[in-house]
Amino acid sequence: MNVHKAKAFGAEAPDADLKELSINRREVTPHDVEIEILYCGICHSDLHAVHNDWGATTYPIVPGHEIVGRITKIGESVTKFQVGDLAGVGCIVDSCRECEYCHNGDEQFCEKGWTVVFNSFDRKYGAITYGGFSENIVVDENYVVRVPENLDLPSAAPILCAGITVYSPLKHWKAGAGKNVGIIGIGGLGHMAIKISKAMGAYVTVYTTSQAKADDARRLGADNVVLSTDAEQMKTCPKQDMILDTVSAKHNLNTYIDLLKVDGSLVMVGLPAEPLEIGAGNVVHGRKSFSGSNIGGIAETQEVLDFCAKHNITADIELIEINEVNNAFERLEKGDVKYRFVIDMTSLKKR
Amino acid sequence: MNVHKAKAFGAEAPDADLKELSINRREVTPHDVEIEILYCGICHSDLHAVHNDWGATTYPIVPGHEIVGRITKIGESVTKFQVGDLAGVGCIVDSCRECEYCHNGDEQFCEKGWTVVFNSFDRKYGAITYGGFSENIVVDENYVVRVPENLDLPSAAPILCAGITVYSPLKHWKAGAGKNVGIIGIGGLGHMAIKISKAMGAYVTVYTTSQAKADDARRLGADNVVLSTDAEQMKTCPKQDMILDTVSAKHNLNTYIDLLKVDGSLVMVGLPAEPLEIGAGNVVHGRKSFSGSNIGGIAETQEVLDFCAKHNITADIELIEINEVNNAFERLEKGDVKYRFVIDMTSLKKR
Repeated sequence: MNVHKAKAFGAEAPDADLKELSINRREVTPHDVEIEILYCGICHSDLHAVHNDWGATTYPIVPGHEIVGRITKIGESVTKFQVGDLAGVGCIVDSCRECEYCHNGDEQFCEKGWTVVFNSFDRKYGAITYGGFSENIVVDENYVVRVPENLDLPSAAPILCAGITVYSPLKHWKAGAGKNVGIIGIGGLGHMAIKISKAMGAYVTVYTTSQAKADDARRLGADNVVLSTDAEQMKTCPKQDMILDTVSAKHNLNTYIDLLKVDGSLVMVGLPAEPLEIGAGNVVHGRKSFSGSNIGGIAETQEVLDFCAKHNITADIELIEINEVNNAFERLEKGDVKYRFVIDMTSLKKR
Repeated sequence: MNVHKAKAFGAEAPDADLKELSINRREVTPHDVEIEILYCGICHSDLHAVHNDWGATTYPIVPGHEIVGRITKIGESVTKFQVGDLAGVGCIVDSCRECEYCHNGDEQFCEKGWTVVFNSFDRKYGAITYGGFSENIVVDENYVVRVPENLDLPSAAPILCAGITVYSPLKHWKAGAGKNVGIIGIGGLGHMAIKISKAMGAYVTVYTTSQAKADDARRLGADNVVLSTDAEQMKTCPKQDMILDTVSAKHNLNTYIDLLKVDGSLVMVGLPAEPLEIGAGNVVHGRKSFSGSNIGGIAETQEVLDFCAKHNITADIELIEINEVNNAFERLEKGDVKYRFVIDMTSLKKR
């Protein structure tokens, strides 16, 4: 297979800083598009992968899975895109395309496992995938989405992971007019969840431990903010149809299950490493559920981009250059970002 | 309020044997019926209540909430029953009748709390309720169900609690033709769940640690039995749409969540006292749920009785006399019963 060299930024060991690397990208095959990457968001799972926190990292690793760019080349059989189109790539760059889930556009449930944009074995091309911290990327057109022209591009990048990760469960559990939706955690995911659930028409309550974040939650669109450390506020706040939990550290879930209405669901999109403790009585009384959700399929990723374009929703970001990325990783580790770092990838090209 | 004396069997302290007591039953008021109790099942929660395991028992306590009998007297405004009708009483004998749940026939979710058949403050009559270990009981007609004439009466009694407790979630989570349903635990609840889910048309897999119970599970109607201690069997068994968990001791739930299909639910009807540990990743990957369910409303209790009558389903029971009840409690504590003790309550009358 023909390849070309591309500039990228990645890590060669769990404890190494990210630095400039030269990687191979395949030349476009009939159904591929090549995308010049303009912006790439930084998600906490980039950090986990670089540090090998999940024990599955192959080095060198080039992270990045919130990719916005412009099509620069198309394979001879491509029908969905033309050169010059804006395009987005999220977590999924391939899947088996044969199972019931792939057929239904739920590639995130692919029975044979989907191919991750980085640090994943590329079933089609026989190499390890490299992500969006790079000047360009080559992806099968079926796993590329359109980015609406009216979105601010840097702040649209986080929709490709943070956006779809909250949109998919909010839609699945029917957040909308007449529904009470609670959000736990105001970070990359949580701040998008506030904006999206509000745009869906729900009455949005945000739970936070911090008075400072309470004001910001209101600015982001929350109808109601509850200090979770205040027992009286927790007791008197409206009961929820659904609570979306975006917190990745271990925390008391039963407190929140108790805030659900009959048939309500607490839906986890964070991934705390330790097991979570749930009382049987907390779910038995009121037929409640503790559930989980993980990103969304390609069609739904297109849907959330179109939804955000319609409702003028983007992430609140700090735009950085590529040589600030190690500092951004350190700050992200401490939760010091409002609310997403996005890298201007043209700064890599210019180095 | 006028009362009459009735023979009953109950306990005067947590560690006391059950013995004959004389209790007050109110005379029927306009909407009440008086029922001569013919049979009463023994459920594990009778044991918990007698022993004050939940810390809320008022003594003396008269347990029993799987009651089958015949109407002997009706109040002047009763329209649903006539003297001589077969009747059943389960856990719920009153509720607020005003909230949205009561209006919808979901009295088990009553916002003000429903009145339990025993050890509960009777909002209407201002006394503590006494259960089915008694020669008769007086209940508002709206909380009494019809027992179909074709059911074997002693073995129909457990439908009033064990039956409704498993029927309600099986129906809610849509067990039926084309669905794979797993059952954990073969006891009072589990053996009814096998029969009912099979009659609903599901493909029923039973998980058990005991080869002896495996044969019985097949006799009860299971299509498939998996020894949960056999890793190979657990790995290769069909994935489930729903698993109903009837086990009341702490156990590993993640093992079972991993056996669910995408969007599958593990539904708890047991009440282990200790918190249960669930991995976030176990529910996040595959959008799975851990849920709970508690008995069912009055209309649904009628529905399960009619369903059982139609499909010729009753419990497998050991019929005992009232003076064997302390021995039965001891055996039940050790799980030594196939699969429900039912008391012939005429043996109390004859004492």
